Amino acid sequence: MFSGAQVSLYPMSDDFVGIIIGALEALDPWRDRLRLETDSLSTLMVGPPEVLFPAMRDLFCAAARTGVHTTMHATVSRGCPGEPDDPICTPRAGQPRNLPLADRVALGRDAVAAAPRLKQDIAAQLSLYPLGVGHHMDEIYGCIAFLKDSGTFDRSKNFCTALRGDAGPVFETLSQAFTGFGAEAGHLAMDVTVSANSPSAR
Amino acid sequence: MFSGAQVSLYPMSDDFVGIIIGALEALDPWRDRLRLETDSLSTLMVGPPEVLFPAMRDLFCAAARTGVHTTMHATVSRGCPGEPDDPICTPRAGQPRNLPLADRVALGRDAVAAAPRLKQDIAAQLSLYPLGVGHHMDEIYGCIAFLKDSGTFDRSKNFCTALRGDAGPVFETLSQAFTGFGAEAGHLAMDVTVSANSPSAR
Repeated sequence: MFSGAQVSLYPMSDDFVGIIIGALEALDPWRDRLRLETDSLSTLMVGPPEVLFPAMRDLFCAAARTGVHTTMHATVSRGCPGEPDDPICTPRAGQPRNLPLADRVALGRDAVAAAPRLKQDIAAQLSLYPLGVGHHMDEIYGCIAFLKDSGTFDRSKNFCTALRGDAGPVFETLSQAFTGFGAEAGHLAMDVTVSANSPSAR
Repeated sequence: MFSGAQVSLYPMSDDFVGIIIGALEALDPWRDRLRLETDSLSTLMVGPPEVLFPAMRDLFCAAARTGVHTTMHATVSRGCPGEPDDPICTPRAGQPRNLPLADRVALGRDAVAAAPRLKQDIAAQLSLYPLGVGHHMDEIYGCIAFLKDSGTFDRSKNFCTALRGDAGPVFETLSQAFTGFGAEAGHLAMDVTVSANSPSAR
């Protein structure tokens, strides 16, 4: 299976170049398990979900800790039929798919509860797209049931769901949503935005 | 049908609040045909595709004309079964769907060629997600054939396609991709990033 993300970091500061370059150091512990390619629009990160999400988390938190209002966007994908298999993407065993939805929701919630706390408050919104299946709304509604029970749920919005909380549990929620819903070997995409230090009121 | 977008504007400047507030004036000519709701993560724009894309274009160009490196992200959606019908979203008649792909590509290319030029160079990347259908890759490959022939194609990337050119044709390309592929009344989502004034080399 091929899995990865196109990731863009947006510090709203005159010093955006310095903040981005500084934050990239946070990827160092992950580099041997990721393939990275940067252009002027985004950085491709290829790797399994259990590396992708913590790596994105650490990259984003490093920029957010400057105190500058920073957002990050990621187009995350797995199982795209147009992409080659890549050994770097082989995921660890995920949730068993033959479990009832309620049990899958409970397993996801337990994983979020066990996530490390990073003392960085963030907001996020995500849209999940299970592709190539006729019953895609069942998987989307299942994922929304998990998000509402995750401990990081903020509110439902048109086209997406908003999360809020410490970066550790919020990124674990994103990872569980990405790996726990949609066909196990199927094509699934996620559109994610995270934000920190916004001057806007909730 | 319900159609709309969650749109976020990111000026990489200490004055990001002033730039965003200034750019919002560019939406004034479109406001009577859109419903807008803003929170700290994004602005919901509800309306038909032929209003959504020019409105996003004018908003982005107003921010880009400050010269500041600015990006915009939009999660665009139509036909989501979880959303109510909304009279404000009723689109004008789109492309006839019974045409062969080559004719649909040609119609889209003609629309892009006829788009107004705005003297603002931009880059963009998009991912198209036709949902609830088993043959989604056919529609994605059809859309990619159109993008390569659109006159705004830059390059193929993992998970997305990059465009480059004047903002007028580039946003018309996005609009044609959104309305010309996927089932006519079906659920379709698009993940779009646009960028101007980047200091990075191509």
